Amino acid sequence: MAGSGAAASALSSPWRALLQRALDANAHLRHSTYFQLATVGAGGRPANRTVVFRGFQEHCDRIQINTDARSNKIGEIRNCPFAEICWYFTDSWEQFRISGNIDVIDSSSADPAKLQHRENAWFASSVKSRLQYLGPEPGVPVLDDDHIKDVHLDPSAGPVDAFCLLVLDPEKVRHVTYFLLPYIY
Amino acid sequence: MAGSGAAASALSSPWRALLQRALDANAHLRHSTYFQLATVGAGGRPANRTVVFRGFQEHCDRIQINTDARSNKIGEIRNCPFAEICWYFTDSWEQFRISGNIDVIDSSSADPAKLQHRENAWFASSVKSRLQYLGPEPGVPVLDDDHIKDVHLDPSAGPVDAFCLLVLDPEKVRHVTYFLLPYIY
Repeated sequence: MAGSGAAASALSSPWRALLQRALDANAHLRHSTYFQLATVGAGGRPANRTVVFRGFQEHCDRIQINTDARSNKIGEIRNCPFAEICWYFTDSWEQFRISGNIDVIDSSSADPAKLQHRENAWFASSVKSRLQYLGPEPGVPVLDDDHIKDVHLDPSAGPVDAFCLLVLDPEKVRHVTYFLLPYIY
Repeated sequence: MAGSGAAASALSSPWRALLQRALDANAHLRHSTYFQLATVGAGGRPANRTVVFRGFQEHCDRIQINTDARSNKIGEIRNCPFAEICWYFTDSWEQFRISGNIDVIDSSSADPAKLQHRENAWFASSVKSRLQYLGPEPGVPVLDDDHIKDVHLDPSAGPVDAFCLLVLDPEKVRHVTYFLLPYIY
């Protein structure tokens, strides 16, 4: 992910270089690739949850997120595609706010290129992380390894129906570094 | 904050005890009191930013956030008071999603009790953190201490006009612990 980001930052938006620098500076922290994705849910109310950065789409600045096609946010995003990522880097005290539209790519997509992106994202995930999409339902914590031991997944098999790729196309990016916390808050 | 939380958790909602446990387990991390606040902004688009937990209001579960009355989110929240907090604890791998309505309490409030809550929040902040509200504008990083050295603030003086208290009244709380990252993501 860092590699692809570094490669792309040379050829794309200025904020990509700042974001890649933050990713590199915080790479020792597992949670440095987690951010909060806000969308508009039922009744026009905001919805906000932690998701994992799955890298940029090749040759562009679009941000990829893997999710479960069975999760509530799929219907919410189809109904209102606007989103804002809030990505706070805890070691460098930087925040990126990235807003744009989200494209939902599941198995029903009619666009071969998008289906290819979804397949690429599937194979870019570890086999272990793919197993969650074979679970009984989304959003349920994995209490132990048992259900994973019981499930067989052919590493060469393509994405299962529950695997969904979200692609956020950044329209506006705001970056701030908090030099003297907590003054700024 | 931890103290008041511990005190209140004994007499209020079950999730308060879980949240207090997470705050205690992650207390060694400065960012454990930061969370992402999602609201609905201009054009019905989501807005998401990092803010600081300023404790619970006395004798209830309402969550307090200090902000600058000059920031864009004040108008946005007055227009649409719904919000969802996403609070991810990086050491215990727990996420709390807390949704509810936000009450904006600034100097123009006509409710003496709310004005008292705002004053209490002001004096609960460090003198240094109060200084940001005397700055030229909100949302601008503090580049150095100079502007702070140049500003005199009487520690006994009440809240300045730019100081605003946000109070979120939780309606729905979802808590999840991610036992085996990255399966759940």
